[in-house]
Amino acid sequence: MIPNKFAALAREGDLVRMSVGLKRTISGVGIHEVIVETPDHSTQLALMDDAEVEQVIKAYLDRYFAVLEDPRVEQVTLFKNHGPGAGTSLEHAHSQLVGTPIIPGEVRERLETALHFFDDAGRCIFCSTLEDEREEGTRLVEENEHFVAFVPFAALSPFHQWIYPKRHCASFGSLKDAEAASLARILRRVLRRLHVGLKDPDYNFVIRTAPKESESVRYYHWYVSVVPRLTKLAGFELGSGMFINVALPEESAQFLRGLEVE
Amino acid sequence: MIPNKFAALAREGDLVRMSVGLKRTISGVGIHEVIVETPDHSTQLALMDDAEVEQVIKAYLDRYFAVLEDPRVEQVTLFKNHGPGAGTSLEHAHSQLVGTPIIPGEVRERLETALHFFDDAGRCIFCSTLEDEREEGTRLVEENEHFVAFVPFAALSPFHQWIYPKRHCASFGSLKDAEAASLARILRRVLRRLHVGLKDPDYNFVIRTAPKESESVRYYHWYVSVVPRLTKLAGFELGSGMFINVALPEESAQFLRGLEVE
Repeated sequence: MIPNKFAALAREGDLVRMSVGLKRTISGVGIHEVIVETPDHSTQLALMDDAEVEQVIKAYLDRYFAVLEDPRVEQVTLFKNHGPGAGTSLEHAHSQLVGTPIIPGEVRERLETALHFFDDAGRCIFCSTLEDEREEGTRLVEENEHFVAFVPFAALSPFHQWIYPKRHCASFGSLKDAEAASLARILRRVLRRLHVGLKDPDYNFVIRTAPKESESVRYYHWYVSVVPRLTKLAGFELGSGMFINVALPEESAQFLRGLEVE
Repeated sequence: MIPNKFAALAREGDLVRMSVGLKRTISGVGIHEVIVETPDHSTQLALMDDAEVEQVIKAYLDRYFAVLEDPRVEQVTLFKNHGPGAGTSLEHAHSQLVGTPIIPGEVRERLETALHFFDDAGRCIFCSTLEDEREEGTRLVEENEHFVAFVPFAALSPFHQWIYPKRHCASFGSLKDAEAASLARILRRVLRRLHVGLKDPDYNFVIRTAPKESESVRYYHWYVSVVPRLTKLAGFELGSGMFINVALPEESAQFLRGLEVE
């Protein structure tokens, strides 16, 4: 990988810094893997059964550990692009994993926000959010033994959902066997609701896990963010970094809760 | 505007904060204007002449001042969405202006980066970048009396371009008459190159101007960011906030420089 290309992996906020003076580039190393989810060319996560999705989650875990072992990798990003509007370049159902030698600025920012809350409140911001959401209930979509799916209070877009593990843990790598099965079940049902209720929309999801150096911190909590791509990111979002959401989170949640899925 | 809807204007980084505890919402006020660029339904900026684009720039300025006068507005974001892939919702050529009661987190971050550079180096990071770019020359696209268009060193995407005013100024509102004419000329030619060389691609541009409270600071410098939407923002970008750019900035600039436009 040409260093300058890798340097181009930067937010416009970062690149002001990078464009000046020394023109610092980061080391041109990185790992990119495509995780094939099924041998069946015509299916997708939303249509699989729990056991099949669990196999996918286990493949994520296997590759997560394998890539994190590389001493050059600081952060593993696991994500899925479903449909052309979500940036899919391959038709066959697949997820992707990218290992980067740095902690992306946006990830660092999220960690810092969580750290400051922890310093102020003495507890994990995600555990606290989860408690609030379960108490209030209006934005909940589904809950099982180990996970809760809900529409965030300030959702980025219509039907945006977070899946939080109930057990506090900073790293996706901490997932136990029973939890992997629970995650498979709730993820499948979240995606199934989108498929049924919104007619197979394009979507992304990403596993927001802590970087290697923060794998066991008390202030961060891993989760999955699921983003249906029903609206386009346009000039206002590019200009301000703020997202316009035309749907009330409580209404999105209510609609999703009302859908019957197996 | 329902407060919760406005709260939904937030980045996922911000919303962790907003989702917790007090569920702070920001005041439900904002101004959104559509600036119609031409009476001709079938044309667009890239196909207009300099005088017509200058009229559009002057309309931007008029509305910028009018909206900034509102005491509730802290930040004015001027932007354009061209084509469905860039989020256009109206077919007739138009730009948009949004006045928000807060300074978006991403804008604040950009200001802070610039401030830190100023504190360290004693000069404006943008003036410094411009000097470097003009000296090196490989990423330049065009220069006129008052403006320089170039592909950023760490461009977000293929053919991403920045248009910097040569004269240091934090605010778009400082634009003088002769400069407005120069901006119209270079913007039209930048858009014309995209139209000719990339076959009328979807694109956004945004005027990155300082918030009201920082209109005359020495450390910030307004500019225009032009982003052709040739690639999709996908799971990796959502997951990491880093952008994958498959084109070398120097090659993008060379291609654009080679195009003949009036």
